[in-house]
Amino acid sequence: MVEKIYVTYNQVHKLCQQAAEQILNEFHPNLMIAIGGGGYVPARILRSFLKKPGSPNIPIQAIGLSLYESFGTDPVEGPGTKVTRTQWLDLSSLEMANLIGKNVLIVDEVDDTRTTLEYAVRELQKDVEEAKQKLGRQGEKTTFTIFVLHNKDKEKKGELPKEIIGEGKYLAAHMVGDVWICYPWEATDIDEHDRLANAQK
Amino acid sequence: MVEKIYVTYNQVHKLCQQAAEQILNEFHPNLMIAIGGGGYVPARILRSFLKKPGSPNIPIQAIGLSLYESFGTDPVEGPGTKVTRTQWLDLSSLEMANLIGKNVLIVDEVDDTRTTLEYAVRELQKDVEEAKQKLGRQGEKTTFTIFVLHNKDKEKKGELPKEIIGEGKYLAAHMVGDVWICYPWEATDIDEHDRLANAQK
Repeated sequence: MVEKIYVTYNQVHKLCQQAAEQILNEFHPNLMIAIGGGGYVPARILRSFLKKPGSPNIPIQAIGLSLYESFGTDPVEGPGTKVTRTQWLDLSSLEMANLIGKNVLIVDEVDDTRTTLEYAVRELQKDVEEAKQKLGRQGEKTTFTIFVLHNKDKEKKGELPKEIIGEGKYLAAHMVGDVWICYPWEATDIDEHDRLANAQK
Repeated sequence: MVEKIYVTYNQVHKLCQQAAEQILNEFHPNLMIAIGGGGYVPARILRSFLKKPGSPNIPIQAIGLSLYESFGTDPVEGPGTKVTRTQWLDLSSLEMANLIGKNVLIVDEVDDTRTTLEYAVRELQKDVEEAKQKLGRQGEKTTFTIFVLHNKDKEKKGELPKEIIGEGKYLAAHMVGDVWICYPWEATDIDEHDRLANAQK
């Protein structure tokens, strides 16, 4: 049986709060991209802690990515390898040009198989590259960084570029085993959920 | 001094949980539109409770609207009347056509001056009308409903159409006075925040 970890809202809040200082000091984000639905809650909390007095909030763009479990007959294709876009950046409000030269922080709740993160980074990089070409702004560097609440220590199906994973541009608040993480926003009984979380302390 | 109300995460969770049954029975939503940043957390929680066994999740589209306080010299224009889009629907993933004939649930955390909600409803209705015209699908009815955690009992600057506000298509989990609502995702000390919330019980 897979071990379950129960995470309370206040623990999520504190994980974001604790990570915020490092994110500000090392990532210097100008923009957050929240991968929905799981990234919505951490991104909204992070926004509070990334705000500097006198400066405006760091804007959040939400994207929607769904991972479809595919248990096909092809033995090479494991489960959870197909990503579907349900929402992408809104190019009418946020021109891709606005991402050029910026530090973009991608936020999600968990790095499980890494498939969703790989997709998000690859597609965002591609879009930015196209915009740079089109606008003759190849000299400007756009940096992608990643924040997740939990990274599962397991074999990953997705890969992240070396300039992210190898150069300290990836931050997971917690490293956990290959466990089942019960996030509070999925709890049908939040009081019982908190009791289970406290019993694990 | 303005009275402050402290709301915990678990209270927000339960407000969404309690509202979900009524939303399912009366609004029959096919799609949620979360107004960011405030709508992110309730929308994500609601999604858990709106999911029916065996059915897929109700998709969430996030839009970003910022209310800019404008204290101009024009006495008619009060504060908080300018709305800026930071994100709109992504028309490449979600064709506006997909909204035609659907029940769309708009989610935000608070109905304060109603300016943001007015803007969201008006612009979404306009976009859907244009899509209907273009596609010759005028006969199909798109219904907009609204869920907020809190509605402030005060004079509103924004107006909502009668078919929403007058026909039971608007649901606020709590009606409160013109108070300052402290949401948990803005708390710099979440334990102290919870203590203050519990002291108010």
